[in-house]
Amino acid sequence: MRCSLGRALDVIGDWWSPLIIRDLFLGIGRFDELVEDLGISRNLLTRRLNLLAEAGVIERQAYQLRPRRWEYRLTAKGRDLVPALLALTEWGNRWAAPEEGPPMLFVHTGCGGPVTPTVVCSECGRPLQADEIRAVAGPGGAAGPGTRVLARRLTLPH
Amino acid sequence: MRCSLGRALDVIGDWWSPLIIRDLFLGIGRFDELVEDLGISRNLLTRRLNLLAEAGVIERQAYQLRPRRWEYRLTAKGRDLVPALLALTEWGNRWAAPEEGPPMLFVHTGCGGPVTPTVVCSECGRPLQADEIRAVAGPGGAAGPGTRVLARRLTLPH
Repeated sequence: MRCSLGRALDVIGDWWSPLIIRDLFLGIGRFDELVEDLGISRNLLTRRLNLLAEAGVIERQAYQLRPRRWEYRLTAKGRDLVPALLALTEWGNRWAAPEEGPPMLFVHTGCGGPVTPTVVCSECGRPLQADEIRAVAGPGGAAGPGTRVLARRLTLPH
Repeated sequence: MRCSLGRALDVIGDWWSPLIIRDLFLGIGRFDELVEDLGISRNLLTRRLNLLAEAGVIERQAYQLRPRRWEYRLTAKGRDLVPALLALTEWGNRWAAPEEGPPMLFVHTGCGGPVTPTVVCSECGRPLQADEIRAVAGPGGAAGPGTRVLARRLTLPH
């Protein structure tokens, strides 16, 4: 896949991985805690943790030696993924929250306020909307699996 | 799942769905085009399109009557998902792009500039970073599958 969305999904590309990353971000990092929190099988969790570690998104550290027990935490690459997952969580809050409201809210310790993660344009700072965004060809070339039709349609940046 | 990330992933929760949404956003909406662009099997694409339509993320319209052929497009709910996917694409550009650079770039027609989708705090406007965000309990209550440990740890908002 040439597409960066495709490559991002290669890393976090299933239902469990984003939830594991969320838990590590929120400080739930021990194997048994992850099993309990997510209701995931031990086998499946082991596989996902290995894949995330291979992708450089998480790393592990022993917190007990006999028997050895591991705690997992996000790497810089993994922490950098959190804002995009928060933007996705916010979409879930808007369109798929329980009737009583969102189960979790976020506080930005930088400014102290409750935060609605918002995706904005880096240039003008305005919230991005789908109908105001146009895709253009980048230096990497779009042709390839996952972008066969797309590559023919992309205009060059002016 | 109580968690809004879990519920969001319930809607778009596999590798193909976000790429289908990306293609619809970029104007690739006919069944045969989607098959060609993504290299996805016709059976699998049919299943994913049906699930996305049930979730209210896409809708279909006939563009030819005999034989009837369908074109798919994003609903308001689906268009609202695009900024979060752009934030995820941007993460892919930073951490997983081909050596030559990103295959695709985005232009914000609102301001005319090339855009780096950025997730910011709705209150202070600063880019969100994982270590500056704290989760607190929301009105929906966090207890439930996918948040069993988490619910015990969330503090109430002050």
